[in-house]
Amino acid sequence: MTLREKKTLEERKKYVEQEIGVSLIALSCGVADYMPASLTNCEQMIGVVRTPLGVAGPLHIKYNKNEYQRYIPLATTEGALIASVQRGMKAIALSGGSVIHVERIGVTRAPVFLTKNVTESLEIKSWIAREHKKLAQVAEATSTHLKYLGASVHMVGKRLYVRFRFDTGEAMGMNMATIATSALVSYIEKKWSVVCTALSSNRCVDKKPSASALLEGRGRKIYAEAYISDAVLKDVCKTTKEKLVQTWVDKCAIGSAIAGTIGNNVHQSNILAAIFLATGQDLGHIAECSSGIITTDREAHGVRISVMMPDLMVGTIGGGTYLPTQQECLSLMQLGVCKTGEQTDFFAALIGGAVLAGEISLLSSLAEGSLACAHQRLARKK
Amino acid sequence: MTLREKKTLEERKKYVEQEIGVSLIALSCGVADYMPASLTNCEQMIGVVRTPLGVAGPLHIKYNKNEYQRYIPLATTEGALIASVQRGMKAIALSGGSVIHVERIGVTRAPVFLTKNVTESLEIKSWIAREHKKLAQVAEATSTHLKYLGASVHMVGKRLYVRFRFDTGEAMGMNMATIATSALVSYIEKKWSVVCTALSSNRCVDKKPSASALLEGRGRKIYAEAYISDAVLKDVCKTTKEKLVQTWVDKCAIGSAIAGTIGNNVHQSNILAAIFLATGQDLGHIAECSSGIITTDREAHGVRISVMMPDLMVGTIGGGTYLPTQQECLSLMQLGVCKTGEQTDFFAALIGGAVLAGEISLLSSLAEGSLACAHQRLARKK
Amino acid sequence: MTLREKKTLEERKKYVEQEIGVSLIALSCGVADYMPASLTNCEQMIGVVRTPLGVAGPLHIKYNKNEYQRYIPLATTEGALIASVQRGMKAIALSGGSVIHVERIGVTRAPVFLTKNVTESLEIKSWIAREHKKLAQVAEATSTHLKYLGASVHMVGKRLYVRFRFDTGEAMGMNMATIATSALVSYIEKKWSVVCTALSSNRCVDKKPSASALLEGRGRKIYAEAYISDAVLKDVCKTTKEKLVQTWVDKCAIGSAIAGTIGNNVHQSNILAAIFLATGQDLGHIAECSSGIITTDREAHGVRISVMMPDLMVGTIGGGTYLPTQQECLSLMQLGVCKTGEQTDFFAALIGGAVLAGEISLLSSLAEGSLACAHQRLARKK
Amino acid sequence: MTLREKKTLEERKKYVEQEIGVSLIALSCGVADYMPASLTNCEQMIGVVRTPLGVAGPLHIKYNKNEYQRYIPLATTEGALIASVQRGMKAIALSGGSVIHVERIGVTRAPVFLTKNVTESLEIKSWIAREHKKLAQVAEATSTHLKYLGASVHMVGKRLYVRFRFDTGEAMGMNMATIATSALVSYIEKKWSVVCTALSSNRCVDKKPSASALLEGRGRKIYAEAYISDAVLKDVCKTTKEKLVQTWVDKCAIGSAIAGTIGNNVHQSNILAAIFLATGQDLGHIAECSSGIITTDREAHGVRISVMMPDLMVGTIGGGTYLPTQQECLSLMQLGVCKTGEQTDFFAALIGGAVLAGEISLLSSLAEGSLACAHQRLARKK
Repeated sequence: MTLREKKTLEERKKYVEQEIGVSLIALSCGVADYMPASLTNCEQMIGVVRTPLGVAGPLHIKYNKNEYQRYIPLATTEGALIASVQRGMKAIALSGGSVIHVERIGVTRAPVFLTKNVTESLEIKSWIAREHKKLAQVAEATSTHLKYLGASVHMVGKRLYVRFRFDTGEAMGMNMATIATSALVSYIEKKWSVVCTALSSNRCVDKKPSASALLEGRGRKIYAEAYISDAVLKDVCKTTKEKLVQTWVDKCAIGSAIAGTIGNNVHQSNILAAIFLATGQDLGHIAECSSGIITTDREAHGVRISVMMPDLMVGTIGGGTYLPTQQECLSLMQLGVCKTGEQTDFFAALIGGAVLAGEISLLSSLAEGSLACAHQRLARKK
Repeated sequence: MTLREKKTLEERKKYVEQEIGVSLIALSCGVADYMPASLTNCEQMIGVVRTPLGVAGPLHIKYNKNEYQRYIPLATTEGALIASVQRGMKAIALSGGSVIHVERIGVTRAPVFLTKNVTESLEIKSWIAREHKKLAQVAEATSTHLKYLGASVHMVGKRLYVRFRFDTGEAMGMNMATIATSALVSYIEKKWSVVCTALSSNRCVDKKPSASALLEGRGRKIYAEAYISDAVLKDVCKTTKEKLVQTWVDKCAIGSAIAGTIGNNVHQSNILAAIFLATGQDLGHIAECSSGIITTDREAHGVRISVMMPDLMVGTIGGGTYLPTQQECLSLMQLGVCKTGEQTDFFAALIGGAVLAGEISLLSSLAEGSLACAHQRLARKK
Repeated sequence: MTLREKKTLEERKKYVEQEIGVSLIALSCGVADYMPASLTNCEQMIGVVRTPLGVAGPLHIKYNKNEYQRYIPLATTEGALIASVQRGMKAIALSGGSVIHVERIGVTRAPVFLTKNVTESLEIKSWIAREHKKLAQVAEATSTHLKYLGASVHMVGKRLYVRFRFDTGEAMGMNMATIATSALVSYIEKKWSVVCTALSSNRCVDKKPSASALLEGRGRKIYAEAYISDAVLKDVCKTTKEKLVQTWVDKCAIGSAIAGTIGNNVHQSNILAAIFLATGQDLGHIAECSSGIITTDREAHGVRISVMMPDLMVGTIGGGTYLPTQQECLSLMQLGVCKTGEQTDFFAALIGGAVLAGEISLLSSLAEGSLACAHQRLARKK
Repeated sequence: MTLREKKTLEERKKYVEQEIGVSLIALSCGVADYMPASLTNCEQMIGVVRTPLGVAGPLHIKYNKNEYQRYIPLATTEGALIASVQRGMKAIALSGGSVIHVERIGVTRAPVFLTKNVTESLEIKSWIAREHKKLAQVAEATSTHLKYLGASVHMVGKRLYVRFRFDTGEAMGMNMATIATSALVSYIEKKWSVVCTALSSNRCVDKKPSASALLEGRGRKIYAEAYISDAVLKDVCKTTKEKLVQTWVDKCAIGSAIAGTIGNNVHQSNILAAIFLATGQDLGHIAECSSGIITTDREAHGVRISVMMPDLMVGTIGGGTYLPTQQECLSLMQLGVCKTGEQTDFFAALIGGAVLAGEISLLSSLAEGSLACAHQRLARKK
């Protein structure tokens, strides 16, 4: 009997607990201490908002020379979303799983300085390149978890934009990066007697859609792909590769070009938002993390579908990850199989696989013209 | 004694309950029936995720010829966010409130059709304009709450993109629009024997960052502005108008241009995400709703700050708004003062005011160089 | 005595020759009379620049219920360009010609006004809609050739952007639009005692790449398509539809998405530049007119290729069209077959056909991998 | 016998005259020898197009530790353009000249390969980094003038985009880069048995507007700035720094954000086009080279104005630079003062200064509201 066949919330919870050998207490009852949260996560706190949590899975992925099967927690209020992701995961599982790769780009923070003029800015620019080691010292002195990766510089008039890049390990690291950047700014201000007018200029780019997110990336960059056979397309996705690729061209490739979207995808923000919420990520980052690209290629016996997500800002420690229910959501993903330092990469890989599943399923619905039906069924339920 | 001076979660909750005369039960205890949610909001549900909820306020706004003071619910795990919004609201209150306007753009859905060629596409385009009344009938037959506003057409080769626009009243309306569009698509497919290859092409643009969001808008368009006096800037924001405007130019105007952002703002996605989560909105929309613009203008005795948010997809009925804690969050905003049909406009206006408050406060911190300090204090608390 | 005080072309040439000790011979040859040009087209004129002019053709097009065959003048210094366009025209001719459609969008000019605040801006916005007739009078009083089409308004803070749209008949019309806008601005400034801080804000958008060019269009919008048979692809284009479509997907669809281009095309700017120069168009407009989209669709017996060019700013009177060589270039396109008022539409249609030819040919070279060879052959000639 | 089979310029001209029954006189006058052009620059050449050429100057610049005064050739048909640039140059001269810096980014060409999947793409990516020296050998073997600078890689699904960067010395270098890239592609195809489906994907980005042009740059990057005193603003520009900065904010900063432009400037494409045409540059590049940014800063005794042009594709040898009139235009700029290898940098610096002059002048006209008047005067002259 699979998760889908379980009828009640309680049955499903037990099923997942047995499947992965953890006990989920907070998720199903309100007894938990929120004093820590009221101190570090949320000022003027008066309570907690509760959002329905479902799980989809198992998601089959091939990552880092291993194969994994995992359940993915999704907190959402959008009917049909989890069912859709579940269908995508089934298609992926029946196709031998999704191959996933993760690249560490690094967290970025880009202060802007006012210099005398471009002449001075150019001096500072080359100094920043030469002084890599010294700047690394200054930055890394602020945290043992942070590594200075480098800086890229843009100039215009007397403005100097320095986009610092850091590796922050298991943490999403925005605060760590901000504190390190603050130290770098003080160091540069003193050294050059220039003034920083914004510790965070929009060159970061933090929590805003931008071309930079797609071209330069931020946080982690994810690649996920799957080869869905014709049979699975027919039985699970209820469509054909011809229709799927046609819908991709019309909707994603050309539709996006006309609308001027950043990237082109089906609904990556939906899956990202549901996992971000479930696992205590910063929801403001959805604005920048939804700039991915999907591709579909007709092959001899099926279709190859891939997603590239250039900007994934996530962590498995810090921020909202410490909260009781969020902790349990992370725990049911069983990240512990990887050693410390590699768990957030694995977490990112699982997000990539879940997003791919969601893309496959909705693209299929659109290709088949069954999107509206699903919503009508839900409407009737109400 | 104000909200800020209350020490405990319980005290703050009681304070708000008294202030606005409602009782907040679900927010503080886990007893609530999630059977409906497991049917309409979340498949394979196994529990609920709990996110800390704080309130900021009172927010003073001038809207539709009236003045209002409201508390705004913000669900977040990002320390310092609510404190920052609270400071902005204080600055606004001491400056006589924020003037807010709301324009209804309408929800959009843009199917793509394959026609014989551009010649046929052009015929269909002019037919769509002529047949406005008939298409309105077809669309409005699917729901008594939906009004057909019109369509804008783009063509390339044999592809015809029709962006339908609907007024969906108090609901965010994406599902309503999808069902209405489905009826329009069937009607057009029969009438012209063309094929729709995607009920939702990326021309919508739904849940993706795009230039269209800024140029054409979607859902509701919000304008919020405030005139902050020099004294308030000094006492509350700890900065000056000179520094504030300089930081705006360097960070928002020029920094955004280099990074290729859509719109230019400080951190609108943060406030949007916190209110969306608290009130049961669709978090996937954060990807498109974070494309606003902020302006700052130095005036004789202060600074005029405004935000324009071209794409706000929100509703006060439907989706996640029915959930227990989300209902209470909406109730504490006291939208009932407006008659049915105007409550979501008022809700949007309050979001605009809260976003403006958040922008004022963070821009001030950046101008003053105090951003990192706040994060360091929080880091120490942990 | 400075250069500016010199009165005649000959005097200025001598002055520069003496100043820098070189002799300018080629610059001033040419029997035609350039006195008019030195008065209206070019200040401080010292001669003429000569650019090689080639012709490609005949181009076969179907436009406005008729078929035409025309030669297209192309002024260029880029070897292989005209040969490439010629090949595309041959493929089009052997395929029965290209079907072309032209939509008049109108020339735009967008002044920005400083108002008291958004409240006043909204009043002015609705007044502009109500006063359409009156504003048309004001605008049309400045020229018998200009028709007022309407205005679209954007607001943020106290800034009001009004994008006026005009039909300027056979002229590209930028100057006409500027003068009409000037009258509208004076009228609005008096009526509302607001201040216009830029007669031309970047909301026009004039001579800059922008998302607006693609979404809203400007000047004329062109659609051109052709169905190239498998045989013609093989014999003329030396490739197959499979390769052609694959190259389109990889280069134009996905490559453009990653690079963040506006539109996606192969090299539209090349053909535009060559025709603009030959016929006396404003070369500064190439920055905005190169935002088109190309599509390729595999069909039963060939491939359907189309281009959509949303923003074509051209005219057949005014500006540089009066110059001797440019006049002859226009005359050899035989636009006179259309009655006055429709000649620029026909001119635009021919440009669309030439651009399509250029796109077909280069895309084929890329699909076949023969691009570099052509350049190597040319290199050897030198 | 068709046009293509005609062997000489004269034969082709006669052929077209007979075909369409017009006589082409002006097109073929001019004593210079265009036989070389008809072989390498322009197929099916029938004559030359003559465009009025004016000069503006002297332009005062400070570049590379020296001061220079130069005349700038501008070929244009747009009345008022040269007069406007001349005014800007006067303002710059009276302010002690413009400080200019040039950075060499390099010419780029980005082929796209189809690999087995991302796994293989990642191997190739790291191999490309490791094999820098070998790839440099392969590329540099194709030309003694070309230097391999490196490659940046993007991947999605089985597509691998490799953006190669080259230094091509005094030449704009697009053909050189294409030939070198062709060699690199052959090498990679053999080594990895992958297939290149486009030698030039739109990731280059060549001759299209793109976010990449602004973020990554191409060719040469130019910085030009000037400090214009209050007195000069008043006497020459007829405006004040307050008005100038206000117009910049309203037009360039906010107007551009709403319209979704790439970069924000006043009319850089105008000056670029006029110099490109005069000196034999490739006019198709105007589409990508017009993505610059202008800034204005109010200072104690004047205003600091700067332009940053991230993507300037120019050369002083090759292409159209060999043509008689274009040669003279280059010669009157006296680039010979720099030693070979640095002349194109100097040429780029002069373009930067001329663009700055044009920006200063038109921004002043807009600030003063005198734009329309100029066009009305010109209109009367006709």
